Amino acid sequence: MNNMNEAESIFSGTKGWEKLRALIEAYRNAGIFILVDENTAKFCLPVLLEKCPELGNSVVITAKSNESNKNIAGVESIWRSLAKGNAVRNSLMLCLGGGVITDMGGFAAATFKRGIDFIHIPTTLLAMVDAAIGGKTGVNLDSVKNQVGVFNLPKAVFIFDTFLETLPKRQKLSGFAEMIKHALIDSPEHFEKLILLNSPEKICNDANILESVLVKVAVVNQDPKEAGIRKALNFGHTIGHAIETYSQKHNTHPILHGEAIAIGMICESFISLRLLNFPEDELRRMSGFINWHFPHYSLNPVIADELFSYMYQDKKSFGQMQLNFSLLRGIGEPAWDQLAGEKLVLESLHFYTNLDAGFFV
Amino acid sequence: MNNMNEAESIFSGTKGWEKLRALIEAYRNAGIFILVDENTAKFCLPVLLEKCPELGNSVVITAKSNESNKNIAGVESIWRSLAKGNAVRNSLMLCLGGGVITDMGGFAAATFKRGIDFIHIPTTLLAMVDAAIGGKTGVNLDSVKNQVGVFNLPKAVFIFDTFLETLPKRQKLSGFAEMIKHALIDSPEHFEKLILLNSPEKICNDANILESVLVKVAVVNQDPKEAGIRKALNFGHTIGHAIETYSQKHNTHPILHGEAIAIGMICESFISLRLLNFPEDELRRMSGFINWHFPHYSLNPVIADELFSYMYQDKKSFGQMQLNFSLLRGIGEPAWDQLAGEKLVLESLHFYTNLDAGFFV
Repeated sequence: MNNMNEAESIFSGTKGWEKLRALIEAYRNAGIFILVDENTAKFCLPVLLEKCPELGNSVVITAKSNESNKNIAGVESIWRSLAKGNAVRNSLMLCLGGGVITDMGGFAAATFKRGIDFIHIPTTLLAMVDAAIGGKTGVNLDSVKNQVGVFNLPKAVFIFDTFLETLPKRQKLSGFAEMIKHALIDSPEHFEKLILLNSPEKICNDANILESVLVKVAVVNQDPKEAGIRKALNFGHTIGHAIETYSQKHNTHPILHGEAIAIGMICESFISLRLLNFPEDELRRMSGFINWHFPHYSLNPVIADELFSYMYQDKKSFGQMQLNFSLLRGIGEPAWDQLAGEKLVLESLHFYTNLDAGFFV
Repeated sequence: MNNMNEAESIFSGTKGWEKLRALIEAYRNAGIFILVDENTAKFCLPVLLEKCPELGNSVVITAKSNESNKNIAGVESIWRSLAKGNAVRNSLMLCLGGGVITDMGGFAAATFKRGIDFIHIPTTLLAMVDAAIGGKTGVNLDSVKNQVGVFNLPKAVFIFDTFLETLPKRQKLSGFAEMIKHALIDSPEHFEKLILLNSPEKICNDANILESVLVKVAVVNQDPKEAGIRKALNFGHTIGHAIETYSQKHNTHPILHGEAIAIGMICESFISLRLLNFPEDELRRMSGFINWHFPHYSLNPVIADELFSYMYQDKKSFGQMQLNFSLLRGIGEPAWDQLAGEKLVLESLHFYTNLDAGFFV
């Protein structure tokens, strides 16, 4: 991955639109491709084309937005569209969409002709604060999330809150979960600010989003390839990913990524309490806050073994029979590569299951 | 790509075996995977296991060696074997085989869990002097060679001439073509040395191979991502790749990569003469030398349009209606990004077709 400070390539607001128009100028002769999904084609592409009329000649490539399409067949379809559109090494791909589009489009671009430039224009809160930032690209293989991919930073990322106006409330909640995670990793002050805002709706403006984004950027800059501190960003994700995978396999209407991570953060804060003396009052406060905002998901004890099997497959695991966690010693004090056994994980799932929505103090 | 001098990670001979045993030690707990093809499983894997008995517990993954299997389906099969074998981020893949194995295995490793370490142990002369060196990994998409891939350097490359003992003569000839290319790019002295050796058989020892490898390494170190001088290594390849693709599509027994590149070098030296005043006596000398060693391939004029269509798809092309070449001003004086029209390319194909095997002076 390029040794760049990603903060310098993140833009928003009116200046963002000017910067975008300036950036794409260099690629016009070599061809610009815009990757969209069925929703962003309808709601976001018209806005983009109005703001950047010079994109009128671009080739539009459509992919499906659902997570189950984030696989190598989806990438192959993008590669074929690039080849058909005569993309060359100095062509550009704009990824206009949520995390599926930025993850899959970034991977397709990073591997087409051994890498063409790409720019992310995330259109969901979740993609703005997480997927589009930090250079992780990739797709799922069989049932395993992000099993295949590369680290490769986009040329630039543009945060435009205007795209959030048409975003369903539940999707905003999903992004809110990662913002909570960033705050918990960052500092008590950042977390207090979210508690005061107390609404995934009110949080949806460029300034709040950028503040959250910069937490991730600061961590990624220190450790782009996730050898150390970047693992802090996996807080809530060992258990969260397993629940997400389970839900996608068994529920007709699976829970969203952020909804799963919200549960994961509660469970992993409980594990933090046990392993690292994460303060009990903070556990109650954050669990209550999250549980109040997010829908409850029923974790039947019989599903535990299936959840464990997903946790062992997690790419952050070091091998068999050890579960690897990114935890918190306190708010703003992340700790990674913490090992826990199945018994403690089971207890943490029980802690979540027994949470009362009125717990918030 | 890592900012490393690849020359420091290339080993051979007895010291090579010692270095290999020392290197793999660090990966034993996380799992070592050995990618082989049907030939190297039989002829090379036993040698490797005898020299490195600690590899006895490794997981062996078998892929098909033919170029038509160098596609994304082949990579998916490797990814699945890695997942099934519980490969983790700090696992290691050893690629034991020819260019198909190092290209495809390198790409599979570089993209599994966003990249695990890999080591190349090339077993063909062609892979030793070319495919395994320089960090290009990738596979073909539909009919287009190396359409998909990434730049990623192996942790180390091991050159062991012992593997060449069982290599068919024609395969040696194929590698010899790239050695001729390196000599032509490098210096008149290097080329004279090959003329004196005058045999793809005699050239197959560690010292000669390393000399050739270091020409490529020096070029790649200057320009890893092929923005400039690395393009010099494409000498002979614009036309050579097109002939190779044509032959794979139409011939029951297609010509080998090096055989196609040999023809490409003759044609592109002719273009060099016309565009860059490459000396006529050197054109006659090198054409005669190559034509004497390599089998003649009949280039019927009616196939020209199909050849052009492959040349336009070439990832080194800048767009439509321009053919991009890496040429020579003289031996040891490469020049890249040289544009030629179809008419001159046709003439160069005629030059090759009319070559007399007795031309060598």
